[in-house]
Amino acid sequence: MRYGIGVDVGGTGIKIGLFSSAGELLEHWVIETNTSDNGAHILTDIAKSVSVNLTVKGIDKKQVNGLGIGIPGPVVNGVVEKCVNLGWGRVEIEKELSTLCGLKVFADNDANAAALGEYKAGSGKEFSSIVFVTLGTGIGSGIIYDGKIIQGFQGYGGEMGHMIINSDETDLCNCGKCGCLEQYGSATGIKRITKKHLAARKDEYSSLREYDYPLTTREIFAEAQKGDAIASDVTEYCMDVLGKGLANVCHVINPEAVIIGGGVANAGDWIIDKIKTNFYKCMIYLGNDTRLILAKLGSEAGMYGAFYLIGKK
Amino acid sequence: MRYGIGVDVGGTGIKIGLFSSAGELLEHWVIETNTSDNGAHILTDIAKSVSVNLTVKGIDKKQVNGLGIGIPGPVVNGVVEKCVNLGWGRVEIEKELSTLCGLKVFADNDANAAALGEYKAGSGKEFSSIVFVTLGTGIGSGIIYDGKIIQGFQGYGGEMGHMIINSDETDLCNCGKCGCLEQYGSATGIKRITKKHLAARKDEYSSLREYDYPLTTREIFAEAQKGDAIASDVTEYCMDVLGKGLANVCHVINPEAVIIGGGVANAGDWIIDKIKTNFYKCMIYLGNDTRLILAKLGSEAGMYGAFYLIGKK
Repeated sequence: MRYGIGVDVGGTGIKIGLFSSAGELLEHWVIETNTSDNGAHILTDIAKSVSVNLTVKGIDKKQVNGLGIGIPGPVVNGVVEKCVNLGWGRVEIEKELSTLCGLKVFADNDANAAALGEYKAGSGKEFSSIVFVTLGTGIGSGIIYDGKIIQGFQGYGGEMGHMIINSDETDLCNCGKCGCLEQYGSATGIKRITKKHLAARKDEYSSLREYDYPLTTREIFAEAQKGDAIASDVTEYCMDVLGKGLANVCHVINPEAVIIGGGVANAGDWIIDKIKTNFYKCMIYLGNDTRLILAKLGSEAGMYGAFYLIGKK
Repeated sequence: MRYGIGVDVGGTGIKIGLFSSAGELLEHWVIETNTSDNGAHILTDIAKSVSVNLTVKGIDKKQVNGLGIGIPGPVVNGVVEKCVNLGWGRVEIEKELSTLCGLKVFADNDANAAALGEYKAGSGKEFSSIVFVTLGTGIGSGIIYDGKIIQGFQGYGGEMGHMIINSDETDLCNCGKCGCLEQYGSATGIKRITKKHLAARKDEYSSLREYDYPLTTREIFAEAQKGDAIASDVTEYCMDVLGKGLANVCHVINPEAVIIGGGVANAGDWIIDKIKTNFYKCMIYLGNDTRLILAKLGSEAGMYGAFYLIGKK
């Protein structure tokens, strides 16, 4: 039997998956992300954990086709120029990790890897091209076009969270601009807009005022579903902005499907329907045939996608 | 010697170029676009003109590698579903034209072909990925990523003219939405904004009022360069919006260069510099390394690109 390893590096934990070469996830485990010493131990930790686990399972490295790895930052030709979340400067990750673990290594950005995961093993399986968007603390996204990741010449392909969607915005995004899509469609964005509504409508009753701060998007969505006016307005507004942003991306790529994942998407079809309303209004020129659907693999998309990086050119 | 034919079909005329197989334009000529009978004669006219010209030049069709053709509408897998400008419904263009002219035919959208032309033989030669934008009556655009056209699953790749850039717009775009990039960055858009400024500032002197209507962008730009306040404000505003729109596209594709062509670009570096200002402000998250430059091939880009379609898969 032959195998492959998929590794998804996050700011807190690193998910490692052992796959059959056919793509079946056989086992997975998590190790801590050690960001001390500018993240100098991360690759060593991964290499050790992989080696130990393979040995315990009686798998020879010769039986392993390779190791794919997703990193929370841009990756070009197997090299990370800078990864703030891990404390890294320039790291020749494919070369270095390969030396450490004795396997062929294939690296890409984590959102690109997650997009590839959904494309190969999740909601994107039936489509030729997808835009994958993960709505969490920020907006991560990846584009798969005819089976290939649109990595971009500096690894910034699919950075749609920082498209400017509202020129009138005065609040600063953490990228230094004002009016980025992330300021409306991410969990952080939704919470920001909620806070603004609660302050501006301070004499209006809202069940949201009963919660301890900071509010979560789960709480905001729950109250919107129960009919709270402010929670509903915030949800409609943010999902309208998101729908427009996603439609704009579709005017560049014309993908067969847009796949929504991340914490915000846990609200399921209820939230997808909200995004759809404005999305399709903005898509009339393109004939409205692009599908807008939920992701399937949840937080495992990145690990699956990392596995599918193996062998990529 | 071996040859290739590049054909660029416009609403008024059809440009036909005879190229050496190495890509040298040997000769080119124009035939009328006959849109009578729902454009039923267009392919026959092209086939006849190509055949006659090859015969006169003593070139056997066996010496011709193929014929590439750009069409003013979406093309997928060699099939046009609808092309309003030519009066066409569904046309299996590669198959039909191939039968008519006895050559292998390769078809794509005209803006995609023009993008490929600039990529292979114009300003894009030194880059791996480009976004090509032609600013004319509308905004046409095409994206070449790692040598391949991003055609989109319905042939709508690179339709950035209909990204919504201003949610507050109340004037209707001809696509049926409000606030599309084309309403600001195209010649039509610039003239629209000029008209609005002249009306809103009716007591203010402007040299633009000395011209006969309708104004041309050349006249507007000329007066802006001479210091007319309204002409300057219009130019700054429209190019700011355009700069933002192009930056948004770059957040999806992260191309090495954005190449600007079309009538509006005839204003040269003066207009490129105006677009650049806001473009780079909006590009800070991507490190500002994407080049923004003028196209080189002018109205011949489509014909060149059509030639380079030959052999594409």
